Amino acid sequence: MTVKRTNIADLGMVKLIDHIAAALPLSQVSTVSGIGNDAAVINNSGKQTVVATHQMLEGVHFDLTYTPLKHLGYKASITAINKIYAMNAAPAQLLLSLGVSQRFAVEDIDEITGGIAAACSRYNLDLAGVDISSSFTGLTIGITAVGAAEADKIVTRNDGKPTDLLCLTGNLGAAYMGLQLLRREKAVFEANNNAQPQLEGYNYILQRYLRPEAQQGTFNLLSDNHVLPTAMISIANGLVSDTMHLCKASNCGVRIYLEHLPIAAETFRMAGEMNFDAVTAALNGGDDYELLFTVPLSMHETIQKELQGIDIIGHLCDAAEGSYLITPDSQAVELKAQGWNGGG
Amino acid sequence: MTVKRTNIADLGMVKLIDHIAAALPLSQVSTVSGIGNDAAVINNSGKQTVVATHQMLEGVHFDLTYTPLKHLGYKASITAINKIYAMNAAPAQLLLSLGVSQRFAVEDIDEITGGIAAACSRYNLDLAGVDISSSFTGLTIGITAVGAAEADKIVTRNDGKPTDLLCLTGNLGAAYMGLQLLRREKAVFEANNNAQPQLEGYNYILQRYLRPEAQQGTFNLLSDNHVLPTAMISIANGLVSDTMHLCKASNCGVRIYLEHLPIAAETFRMAGEMNFDAVTAALNGGDDYELLFTVPLSMHETIQKELQGIDIIGHLCDAAEGSYLITPDSQAVELKAQGWNGGG
Repeated sequence: MTVKRTNIADLGMVKLIDHIAAALPLSQVSTVSGIGNDAAVINNSGKQTVVATHQMLEGVHFDLTYTPLKHLGYKASITAINKIYAMNAAPAQLLLSLGVSQRFAVEDIDEITGGIAAACSRYNLDLAGVDISSSFTGLTIGITAVGAAEADKIVTRNDGKPTDLLCLTGNLGAAYMGLQLLRREKAVFEANNNAQPQLEGYNYILQRYLRPEAQQGTFNLLSDNHVLPTAMISIANGLVSDTMHLCKASNCGVRIYLEHLPIAAETFRMAGEMNFDAVTAALNGGDDYELLFTVPLSMHETIQKELQGIDIIGHLCDAAEGSYLITPDSQAVELKAQGWNGGG
Repeated sequence: MTVKRTNIADLGMVKLIDHIAAALPLSQVSTVSGIGNDAAVINNSGKQTVVATHQMLEGVHFDLTYTPLKHLGYKASITAINKIYAMNAAPAQLLLSLGVSQRFAVEDIDEITGGIAAACSRYNLDLAGVDISSSFTGLTIGITAVGAAEADKIVTRNDGKPTDLLCLTGNLGAAYMGLQLLRREKAVFEANNNAQPQLEGYNYILQRYLRPEAQQGTFNLLSDNHVLPTAMISIANGLVSDTMHLCKASNCGVRIYLEHLPIAAETFRMAGEMNFDAVTAALNGGDDYELLFTVPLSMHETIQKELQGIDIIGHLCDAAEGSYLITPDSQAVELKAQGWNGGG
C-alpha cells in the first residue's frame, strides 16, 4: 500500500488552513466567526467568558515514536478543554497554533486535526481559529480553549475553606504507568528492531495516557446535583503538585488519606510488573486529567450518596496545620511542592 | 558587573508563575480572574468576545543572537493584539504559553515578561493566564489575545465589495529591511568576532522589525470618524499574501497601484545600500503589522481628508477580473498567492 504524502510547501499555508477549516465545519451557536479571520468571534449572551491555553512540545509532552498523531490532536484538545471544566464552565471553542517541521506532510496535519475534530465532535466544540508556522525543530501544538458560564457558577482555586472535604474524580496514576509501559517497549525495540511491542492486555493504562477524556461527566454530575464546589483544579501535574496549588490559592493546609486514594487494578498490576510503587504514580505521576474539588463538610452525605465515581480523599485545614499525607498506620508525611515540572 | 542568574529548576514552576503574576498585576475591569487558575475569566457585558492566537518559534520567527528577549516579549504581544484590532475590536487580555529550555534563567523569563508587561501597559491589557513548559529545543512563545466589540462593529475579511477602496495604514517593507540589516551584521560578526555591529543611523527600520507597535491609533481613528470598513486584515505575511487572503474571503479581485504604495525613506536607503528592491520588500517582506481595509467608494473624500496616515492603494473588483498590481507605466502584473510562509 502506498501512503499518499502531500508536501505542505506545495499546498501552501493559505490552502492548508482552508483544508483544515473544510474538515472542521462550525456547529456551535456561540461561534459567530471561525477559521479564516485574524480572530475568532464568540457571542456568550451575557455569560462570562473563560479562556485557557496549553502548549504541547515534542520531546517534552510527547514522543512521536509511540504517540499516534491523531491521539496527540485529541489529547492536546482534552488538556485545554479540561481547564475550562475545572472552572465549572462549558467549553465551546478551540483555537489551534501549530508549528510543523519539514518532515511533516499534509496527511500528518490531517491526522492531528482529525484528532481535534474527534474531540470537537465528542464534546460539542468548534475549532474557531488556526495559526500555522514552520518549525525548525520539533512539532509544537498550542490549544486555546474558550468556554462560558454564569458568573455565580464559576469555581476558582481560591475559595476552599478549612474543614472543606477534598473530592476527586476517577483514579490516579494510570496514565503514568501507561507512559512507563510505552517507554519500556520503546527501549526493547531500540535494542532489537525485530522485537514486537508487547502492548496487549494493557488497554486501560495506554488509553489513559494516549487518549484521555475530559470531565464533561463531572461537570454535568455537579450541575444535576446542584453541587457548587468551593474550589477546583484539573490534576495535570500530579495530585501532590496540584493539591498544593489549590491549597496555596485558598490559603489552607490539607490532609490526604492514603487509603482513600483511588488507584485502578490495572495500575497496580503494571506497577507490580515493573517493580514500581503504584502510590508514587498516583501521587506524582501527572497526566491524570481528573478534577480535584472541595465542598463544605455539610455535603458529606450528598457526595457519598449522589455523586457516583467521586471519592472523598481528605479535607482542607488551617494553613498553620500544614499539608500532610496520612498513611493507614496514621503516620503523617509532609507534602512538598514539586520543583520544575515540564510535563502535564 | 555580575549578572544574577537564578536557575528555573531551583525556583520551581509554581513559584515562577507566581513571580510572573506579581510582576503583572491586573488592571482591566473586564478581567474577573487572571493568572493562577486553570483558565482566565472575562466579563464582556454582552459584547462579543474576540480571540486570536499566535505562536513564535526560535529559529523561525526570531534569532536570539540579535533579538533582545524584552523586545521579543513585546513583539509577540503586538502580533496577537494586532489580530484583535484587525477585527475592529478592543483587546483587553493576553494569555501566555512559554516553552523554555535549560539555557534560560529566571532573569531571562523576566526579560520576556517585562516586554509583555510593557505591551500590557502601553495598550491597557491584562496578562490573564500563563502556561509554562520546559522545552528540549528552542524557545517557544504562544500568545492568545482576547478582546471585545459590539456585534455590529466587528469587521471580518469576508464583506469587501467590488469597487470598494483598498486602504493601508503606515508604510511597508521597513521591518523586512531591518531584518536584512540584522542578518548582515550577524554574518559580519560570525566572520570576525572583533567586529562591532554597525547599527547606528538605522533606528527606524530596526524598531519596525524588533519592536513593532499595534494599530490602536487606527482603531481610534476609524471609530472617531465613524468609518466602519467592509473588510480588514493585519499585514503579517506581506502585502500580496494578505491582500490575496482578503480578496479570497470577500470573493473579489483587486487592483493595487504601485505608485501609491507607501515606503519609508529609510527603507529605500537600506534597500539601496544592499542592492535590494524596496518594492519587493514592500510587497512580500512581512512583519509589517499594518492594517489593510476596504471601504465603499463613496468614502473616498472622507478617507483622504479625515484619515491622517491612511493611503488608498487600490480597489477591489469582480473576482473574474483577477488580482493585479498596476505599474506606473500601466503594466498589469498578476498577484500570486504565496506558498508556505513560516514567518509573520
